Amino acid sequence: FTTLPADFKDNLKKVYEAIEESDFLAIDGEFSGISDGPSVSALTNGFDTPEERYQKLKKHSMDFLLFQFGLCTFKYDHAEEKYIMKSFNFYIFPKPFNRSSPDVKFVCQSSSIDFLASQGFDFNKVFRNGIPYLNQEEERQLREQYDEKRSQANGAGSLSYLSPNPTKCPVTIPDDQKKFIEKVVEQIEDLLKNEENESLQLEPCTGFQRKLIYQTLSWKYPKGIHVETLESDKKERYIVISKVNEEERKRREQQKQAKEQEELNDAVGFSRVVHAIANSGKLVIGHNMLLDVMHTIHQFYCPLPDDLSEFKEVTSCVFPRLLDTKLMASTQPFKEIINNTSLAELEKRLKEVPFSPPKVESAEGFPSYDTAAEQLHEAGYDAYITGLCFISMADFLGSFLSPPQNHVSARSKLIEPFFNKLFLMRVMDIPYLNLEGPDLQPKRDHVLHVTFPKEWKTSDLYQLFSAFGNIQISWIDDTSAFVSLSQPEQVQIAVNTSRYAESYRIQTYAEYVEKKHEEKQAKRKYTEDSWKEMERKRLKTQCTPYVSQSRYYCVNSFTGNSTVEKRSMSPIQEETGSDNMEEGEGQNPEYDQTDSCAESLPDGKKRAKKFKRIKTEQVPAGKHSVCARDFLFCLELS
Amino acid sequence: FTTLPADFKDNLKKVYEAIEESDFLAIDGEFSGISDGPSVSALTNGFDTPEERYQKLKKHSMDFLLFQFGLCTFKYDHAEEKYIMKSFNFYIFPKPFNRSSPDVKFVCQSSSIDFLASQGFDFNKVFRNGIPYLNQEEERQLREQYDEKRSQANGAGSLSYLSPNPTKCPVTIPDDQKKFIEKVVEQIEDLLKNEENESLQLEPCTGFQRKLIYQTLSWKYPKGIHVETLESDKKERYIVISKVNEEERKRREQQKQAKEQEELNDAVGFSRVVHAIANSGKLVIGHNMLLDVMHTIHQFYCPLPDDLSEFKEVTSCVFPRLLDTKLMASTQPFKEIINNTSLAELEKRLKEVPFSPPKVESAEGFPSYDTAAEQLHEAGYDAYITGLCFISMADFLGSFLSPPQNHVSARSKLIEPFFNKLFLMRVMDIPYLNLEGPDLQPKRDHVLHVTFPKEWKTSDLYQLFSAFGNIQISWIDDTSAFVSLSQPEQVQIAVNTSRYAESYRIQTYAEYVEKKHEEKQAKRKYTEDSWKEMERKRLKTQCTPYVSQSRYYCVNSFTGNSTVEKRSMSPIQEETGSDNMEEGEGQNPEYDQTDSCAESLPDGKKRAKKFKRIKTEQVPAGKHSVCARDFLFCLELS
Repeated sequence: FTTLPADFKDNLKKVYEAIEESDFLAIDGEFSGISDGPSVSALTNGFDTPEERYQKLKKHSMDFLLFQFGLCTFKYDHAEEKYIMKSFNFYIFPKPFNRSSPDVKFVCQSSSIDFLASQGFDFNKVFRNGIPYLNQEEERQLREQYDEKRSQANGAGSLSYLSPNPTKCPVTIPDDQKKFIEKVVEQIEDLLKNEENESLQLEPCTGFQRKLIYQTLSWKYPKGIHVETLESDKKERYIVISKVNEEERKRREQQKQAKEQEELNDAVGFSRVVHAIANSGKLVIGHNMLLDVMHTIHQFYCPLPDDLSEFKEVTSCVFPRLLDTKLMASTQPFKEIINNTSLAELEKRLKEVPFSPPKVESAEGFPSYDTAAEQLHEAGYDAYITGLCFISMADFLGSFLSPPQNHVSARSKLIEPFFNKLFLMRVMDIPYLNLEGPDLQPKRDHVLHVTFPKEWKTSDLYQLFSAFGNIQISWIDDTSAFVSLSQPEQVQIAVNTSRYAESYRIQTYAEYVEKKHEEKQAKRKYTEDSWKEMERKRLKTQCTPYVSQSRYYCVNSFTGNSTVEKRSMSPIQEETGSDNMEEGEGQNPEYDQTDSCAESLPDGKKRAKKFKRIKTEQVPAGKHSVCARDFLFCLELS
Repeated sequence: FTTLPADFKDNLKKVYEAIEESDFLAIDGEFSGISDGPSVSALTNGFDTPEERYQKLKKHSMDFLLFQFGLCTFKYDHAEEKYIMKSFNFYIFPKPFNRSSPDVKFVCQSSSIDFLASQGFDFNKVFRNGIPYLNQEEERQLREQYDEKRSQANGAGSLSYLSPNPTKCPVTIPDDQKKFIEKVVEQIEDLLKNEENESLQLEPCTGFQRKLIYQTLSWKYPKGIHVETLESDKKERYIVISKVNEEERKRREQQKQAKEQEELNDAVGFSRVVHAIANSGKLVIGHNMLLDVMHTIHQFYCPLPDDLSEFKEVTSCVFPRLLDTKLMASTQPFKEIINNTSLAELEKRLKEVPFSPPKVESAEGFPSYDTAAEQLHEAGYDAYITGLCFISMADFLGSFLSPPQNHVSARSKLIEPFFNKLFLMRVMDIPYLNLEGPDLQPKRDHVLHVTFPKEWKTSDLYQLFSAFGNIQISWIDDTSAFVSLSQPEQVQIAVNTSRYAESYRIQTYAEYVEKKHEEKQAKRKYTEDSWKEMERKRLKTQCTPYVSQSRYYCVNSFTGNSTVEKRSMSPIQEETGSDNMEEGEGQNPEYDQTDSCAESLPDGKKRAKKFKRIKTEQVPAGKHSVCARDFLFCLELS
């Protein structure tokens, strides 16, 4: 059995305490890779639906290892009007626990590893001193193994099974082993007769022979002896038999149980921190955190479920309240005054007017980070500045109140509209994955789906659509792409003119979705026992929360497959500089959160439009007097 | 473009020199994992054929990374009667070379990583300072990229394409780009008219626009200007146009070519060392080296071929002369006097009588290893002691000569029988993979193939065969195993008695092989375009040796699919303690090399048998007087 890195075990109480006392937590993960697919850009199409994006990330990203987990806890000190911060940096590695524990394989992506190396990442800390972990199923199995051993021992009265493979005992002793077993029994008879010797060490033998010995002794000597398997320096296993009275036996049994419990805890390892976070019900902040959330659940809870809706359910158990600072910064009222939402740039921007740098200090005995030194991409540091960003933005919301407030707490109603919405990278018209209900379904009536020979390049597509003015291309694969036109009216013209083309094919987005849906249905139909499979899947992925008394345990504000209310988003690509979408080089598309949710709400729309105009005019001047409720109301309905 | 770790580049000459002057080389690799299959023992069945074993290793081991390569060169100093040794330890990592280079993904196995960590392996050296590499196909592609750029530049007279994607130019300029291009042309006209300015810097633009500029200028200004793409601090790409005369243009072109060649060399990286080893034609020693050879070829030459016979062809190009010290130590005359052939134990054993510790010194300026300190599992150290083992064993062979010789060189005929035979781990009756011809085909007429319910355990099998005395079990999977009986005559009895059994099924090994073969044939038949595929495969895997003037280039002493002469091996399991086969815990089966090859050669058999008897009697006494030719002759024919 392996022991954990001592400092983790010692510090676990500190971690629990920090979580418990905090107002909110910030987290960040570093992975051994991002995508094992052809290329990251191919896997993030601008017109992915949330379901498609989830499936892509699940398929192409979950074989990587989350090997550094940053946790930063923030507690507000009302008297001093500042936050007290405690940051933790966990290196994580699935060190095999014992001979029967899973030997995890994980993938590394050279570019990701190289990037982390260039940031000074310490791989030796991961691979030499990483903290192990078990997901819930593995923990359950290990617990069962222990329980089974114990019940066997109890049933047998005096035997403790330390054999590495506690399987069912064979019914009979094979002929060729009978002599061997008889000899062992003789030795024990001698031991019991002889008053001088207290214990007996048998010769090393095979696992099968050890099993036979345990079985025989359990039956022959239900009381009075203790049987144990030990390992020699040469890694040979041998059995030691000792005479014990009932009291001594019980004491040993208890000792062993305590030891087993400790071993179990050691094996569960880092998952205990994640359980503590989940059970605290505290607000958990992250920056562009969809992958962090998926990896955390996948590694420390359960393999990711097959459907997005099931993923949302599991997430609501593990992280009942999430807030993504990238989504927050991309949403009104921040999007107008924040150009670059990458973590490093955001942190810098939020130190300047109209924002104020937050007052945050390290707790006594905890290391402090210097944001000027920029230890970016150490998970603990990234979690720390993610927390800073959240505080600045939350406090900024206080300026809309009358009277204005300098401090907005993590419990304030003002930030609730940003809860449980995870930023969706490079999706043109769906800003976030909505964990609390069905996702937005923009109309996409200006979008075409085009298939063409694999020799085609971007320039060929530009040429094909040269009559339609400004277009945007989102590559799907070698032979297909989405092309969005500036005006929905052009869509039918494009489809009509292509009707007799031989080398390429154009259909509307709606037609494309319908055909895809039909294909899926057909596939499902032809799977003979699809129903059974579905049932099995449903049972498999029902989430088993770690502790059910959590305040936020599985509060699902939506019903899984209810008919989704159609929403449309206004085609706003023209006004916002959406050029950068095609090249997809780092910069993030601008979202018009306000407009998108407004369209389905005539009243909201007017207010939002008005609000937007005012924002645009007023932002440069600094503080705002418009009541924050205006945009919050709108957000809440989306 | 990345630069290589400086010391590799600087030391490459030293490496070349060491290889060139050496008498033989020893190599060893460390990997990020061994097997991504269910378990190592399941993947190494005792009755695997060499073809099956090759397929298993190819399927389950090649996704791991060979990330440390040890090379140790040995040169004999006749005057001083000692070897001069130079050892090198290369850390290897596929750092992406540029934006278009492959982003390699590789698998890590926790148990392997944990094992290396416990040996003090430095992962930071791999991931931060690892040397990159390209296989032959990748090198060819990169070379082609450079050539294409150069030929485009030459064809255009004065243009140098530094665009990252040198694709074919679009035929026409899209309408929406016409204005942009016209403006650029105007600017160049101004530049050419104006005598004061020597160059012109264009605004940053998209890759597509840069391509259009290159195309237009190539056509409009075949001479007199030089066009180059540069990158700003902000990672924006822009074009610089400068006026040049013909001389200046040529000088620049040459400069650029030299730089390109250096970049290419840097990218080929560690593969250059492997090429040097291959081209030297030197004897290459390894210990249990099948995986090392497979990984080296897979990583630095080409993806492993589909068939074992093709693998043998490729190997004969890359490593024309191999010697596996584990196979050597498991073969006569060594097997009788060497109990444990694991590298560490072998090295210790070979320091004692009847062997003599070899005289080996580090070359000046090279680090020396202390075998007492045991830096095991550093590749350079393992390569070093592998070399020591070879020297001790080779020198021992000299004792059989009359008059006896203390030193046996790597060129001696005495060691040729051990060439190109790679040790096969845990195969009961085939000691090695024969790289120079068809593999041994032992009869296996005492072996049964049994299928049974997945609940069955070893004890159930023991019980089933309890009437047949001593048996050996080799698990294939959950529901099947090979069972070898002590006497071939029992085989038919077992098959007959099982005829009406419902829960299990027994067939002879021959029946099993035949059925498997039939299934394979059937599969092949039903593949519609199997022939085409085969042809494609054949073309794909034809080996393209790095330098064709190599002395040992593709000398194939066998014809790929010729009918294999049937050989049988005598059932010798009884006399050698073959118990350890079933548990498969570390210890290696004993092989009777002499017998196995003797059976098909009546004369050889007699001599071998006689030889064996003499050996058994004489070994404890020390030196031997029997002419070594006896067993060597026999080995040569196998």
